[in-house]
Amino acid sequence: MTAVCELCSEHHPLEVWRGGHFYLIDAGGEDFPCFFRVVCRRHAAEMTDLSPEELKVLTELLSEIERCIREELRPDKINLAQFGNMVPHLHWHIVARWKDDPFFPECPWGPRQREANAETSGARRRVVLSFLKALRPVLSAIDPP
Amino acid sequence: MTAVCELCSEHHPLEVWRGGHFYLIDAGGEDFPCFFRVVCRRHAAEMTDLSPEELKVLTELLSEIERCIREELRPDKINLAQFGNMVPHLHWHIVARWKDDPFFPECPWGPRQREANAETSGARRRVVLSFLKALRPVLSAIDPP
Repeated sequence: MTAVCELCSEHHPLEVWRGGHFYLIDAGGEDFPCFFRVVCRRHAAEMTDLSPEELKVLTELLSEIERCIREELRPDKINLAQFGNMVPHLHWHIVARWKDDPFFPECPWGPRQREANAETSGARRRVVLSFLKALRPVLSAIDPP
Repeated sequence: MTAVCELCSEHHPLEVWRGGHFYLIDAGGEDFPCFFRVVCRRHAAEMTDLSPEELKVLTELLSEIERCIREELRPDKINLAQFGNMVPHLHWHIVARWKDDPFFPECPWGPRQREANAETSGARRRVVLSFLKALRPVLSAIDPP
């Protein structure tokens, strides 16, 4: 299975942190300057495929990332989603949303509502790149490498 | 806030179960015959607004509903999402997905891929309505009324 699943990678090109059970992808760009993916290291497909320990760790990682995003960026909403229809390897999308972002109030996979504002988006992106440094050790304390 | 929020309702028209902290909406129809929403009873917006007790109960409710869906319907994938961009009152979407459903492999909020098959969908819908009877007491044991 690992041969065909891109998320089974031990060195994902967008990876910004790796713990014992999960790793973190920074999927941010102009449309969504604060967009992370928390990926399970093993090839599990569903939440109910996780062990109680993995579920506990994942819940804490998602909470801590959300807490950090809210504190640093004060977005209008946090969006969380787990689909895996195209890549059936458990991964969570965490997306900070603002009323002025290109898809609000639609979800990030819905129809575009407007163009991104490069300046606003760039400023938010810089905050993300800055808080990532402090976030890594916090995540490692929850899910040690 | 309660005056303008439709999810603050103590008697939601699509409600099929209510516990002490959360209630369940059956949002299933022809496109998605197995589509539930777990709604927080109080007007919290984000996961990190929940108390540790509420978070624990919610995690268990989502796991139990997912477990039941997988056992009874064997879908190709489970989709989970929390947006709240339009109604900023914490609610989780749980959607069973099949490769032949109208939006697969897109998410339920993405572009339609094909028409629903009324017969297949109706058969799945009947299974949902049938397992709901057994699911209610299980959910009440996790989140007593």
